[in-house]
Amino acid sequence: MASEKPLAAVTCTAPVNIAVIKYWGKRDEELVLPINSSLSVTLHQDQLKTTTTAVISKDFTEDRIWLNGREEDVGQPRLQACLREIRCLARKRRNSRDGDPLPSSLSCKVHVASVNNFPTAAGLASSAAGYACLAGVGLSPVIPVLKRLMGEKHCRPGVQDQPGQHTYTLARVYGVESDLSEVARRGSGSACRSLYGGFVEWQMGEQADGKDSIARQVAPESHWPELRVLILVVSAEKKLTGSTVGMRASVETSPLLRFRAESVVPARMAEMARCIRERDFPSFAQLTMKDSNQFHATCLDTFPPISYLNAISWRIIHLVHRFNAHHGDTKVAYTFDAGPNAVIFTLDDTVAEFVAAVWHGFPPGSNGDTFLKGLQVRPAPLSAELQAALAMEPTPGGVKYIIVTQVGPGPQILDDPCAHLLGPDGLPKPAA
Amino acid sequence: MASEKPLAAVTCTAPVNIAVIKYWGKRDEELVLPINSSLSVTLHQDQLKTTTTAVISKDFTEDRIWLNGREEDVGQPRLQACLREIRCLARKRRNSRDGDPLPSSLSCKVHVASVNNFPTAAGLASSAAGYACLAGVGLSPVIPVLKRLMGEKHCRPGVQDQPGQHTYTLARVYGVESDLSEVARRGSGSACRSLYGGFVEWQMGEQADGKDSIARQVAPESHWPELRVLILVVSAEKKLTGSTVGMRASVETSPLLRFRAESVVPARMAEMARCIRERDFPSFAQLTMKDSNQFHATCLDTFPPISYLNAISWRIIHLVHRFNAHHGDTKVAYTFDAGPNAVIFTLDDTVAEFVAAVWHGFPPGSNGDTFLKGLQVRPAPLSAELQAALAMEPTPGGVKYIIVTQVGPGPQILDDPCAHLLGPDGLPKPAA
Repeated sequence: MASEKPLAAVTCTAPVNIAVIKYWGKRDEELVLPINSSLSVTLHQDQLKTTTTAVISKDFTEDRIWLNGREEDVGQPRLQACLREIRCLARKRRNSRDGDPLPSSLSCKVHVASVNNFPTAAGLASSAAGYACLAGVGLSPVIPVLKRLMGEKHCRPGVQDQPGQHTYTLARVYGVESDLSEVARRGSGSACRSLYGGFVEWQMGEQADGKDSIARQVAPESHWPELRVLILVVSAEKKLTGSTVGMRASVETSPLLRFRAESVVPARMAEMARCIRERDFPSFAQLTMKDSNQFHATCLDTFPPISYLNAISWRIIHLVHRFNAHHGDTKVAYTFDAGPNAVIFTLDDTVAEFVAAVWHGFPPGSNGDTFLKGLQVRPAPLSAELQAALAMEPTPGGVKYIIVTQVGPGPQILDDPCAHLLGPDGLPKPAA
Repeated sequence: MASEKPLAAVTCTAPVNIAVIKYWGKRDEELVLPINSSLSVTLHQDQLKTTTTAVISKDFTEDRIWLNGREEDVGQPRLQACLREIRCLARKRRNSRDGDPLPSSLSCKVHVASVNNFPTAAGLASSAAGYACLAGVGLSPVIPVLKRLMGEKHCRPGVQDQPGQHTYTLARVYGVESDLSEVARRGSGSACRSLYGGFVEWQMGEQADGKDSIARQVAPESHWPELRVLILVVSAEKKLTGSTVGMRASVETSPLLRFRAESVVPARMAEMARCIRERDFPSFAQLTMKDSNQFHATCLDTFPPISYLNAISWRIIHLVHRFNAHHGDTKVAYTFDAGPNAVIFTLDDTVAEFVAAVWHGFPPGSNGDTFLKGLQVRPAPLSAELQAALAMEPTPGGVKYIIVTQVGPGPQILDDPCAHLLGPDGLPKPAA
């Protein structure tokens, strides 16, 4: 099956994004069109990224995929939909651009490998299953990769990857954005927000075909350099309701979700964009917390009800509110997605004190030296006043570890062939 | 201070009620007018009741109150409001009825004693403070008692309590209901629903003065004899946000609460009344669960968010849904008020099997012989199929005990002087 001929290959990295105005619910399951717009912060890839390599060859007899080193079933419907969409786009573009006949290359099979630089246990991918890194944050890098391979002239065995012809970059030109968003959406709705760095909104759009349901950058990663993001990884007891199933149930049964989507979110989108534009941290923080809470409220209003927050999540919520109350100012915000892990927003001058508060509330066991990951945090003592204000019985081990990161850039194409996750034979390279 | 003369004394019992369409939020804090109507089931007093004795005497120099045997501060604002309201009503009625001059008796001081026949730990009273049994379920018996004493001709030292002249009964005549509801509301909104047995609605009303915000019976206690109520008392970790403070915060900060009150509850009130009228258990059960969930969703949408459900509450929720799924039918419903205890509705033919499921999920420790209180439950085995369907790791001690009860009658006047909680000296009798 493996060919000795040179193969067309491309590797790309993509970031994780965390929504501050939450997406929950589709108005079109097939096209993955949301019932409301959403807005997210792109996290820095130094701490959290997904790397994906795609290779095509006429010699491949089937599509194959490896996630974090393990081969997965390529028949997974979302991945199929995504591949179909890519092939369809490539075909359309070719036809409209130069009238070329449909190249045989479009029937090439593809091999994909994708790895996260963070443990799956972090729960930052949206699915608890093996498809996590594709279905969630991980799908976005596949798109530019596949488009590059299939939409341009690379889909020919024997033609080397040509640096400079970055479909990803080309695609960002006005008018092609919708295509990128569309393909990303097919895999996992929120993945389309990982196509940009900084602060990104996913406009819900109005059209039935979803052409105006696209991601756009609200502000670049350089806009708010003081902003810090802490991921508090919580020990989860058991598997959750997956987000696809959960949001479908919410759309079908929660009267509050419809009201939220129609009557609450539009004003919140505008207000959140203003907070970011003006770097108004207290307002940004409060709205972030309120929107997280309202998302979880609609989960509770779902029938049967869904609960993603656990007892540790609630302790973190209380800790944040008491921390802010102690300071008489909103210095820290939490947000929770479809799982118990907290994502914390704060400014650089508050990180050390907040970490001390978390350390007090959830003292690490033997893993004290690896409790803090990512950006360096200078140690800070916890004042007796703050400790008293927190009024918390410590819960040892409640938080497994903290990843300290910041706002970061969008997907990157890696031109170094050494970065490819698949070898010349189209199979995963042995782990380094 | 105590007088040897005979005193005017009256004793009354009142039931606990459990809302199936929830009250949460006041449109008028002073008059205790709700933002939506609510509907409750009155529980049987054989299992849960509050007994209250009120005595008046010209010899008393101050109002005094004992709750569960302990003297409490009579200056508590709600109790003051309630006493003021009673005196005002008595004055008005006297003036309008027979043109009698204001009798000096209206300035009499009152002694009140109130006891629950269930542990405060059951958390069925709405306030965690010492005023629990007055502020919550316990206030309602005070009303007929005080009205009887002050609104009729008893407020004179030396005049014996006259059996047959039951203000409570008289008050139920059309037109006086609003007075009763009004006084009850002043103490604790939901207490007005404890004025009747069976199924009771509290109509929110429209008038600014609250005259049309009254409780009315939807169906008597004899209407649905198969209905059973189980209270699952859960070990709570710590004190909660009180319901008065909580609902004020929700009204001020939750966009979802306003929508619920205006756009969801009216249709649910009508549907719930239909379910009860037609004894349609599956629909009654589903709506009961949905409304409990929506109430807790609005608590989560409050800022800062409020959580009354704990991990055990969530295990009970999952147990109920799996129990129903196993049967392919909605045979059991849960509802939760401002605390972690579950109140379960089911029919008599399902009690034994559901108790077996709870016993499996939350095995009692050394208290197996007192785990079940109230109505007798014939032991039933848990089938292997149901146990597998529950898919629950047992949580020993998660449920402390179960009170099994049913729908019951409204307040009762006790004519036997032995029932008085206060002795001839106006002070609490020694506990039997």
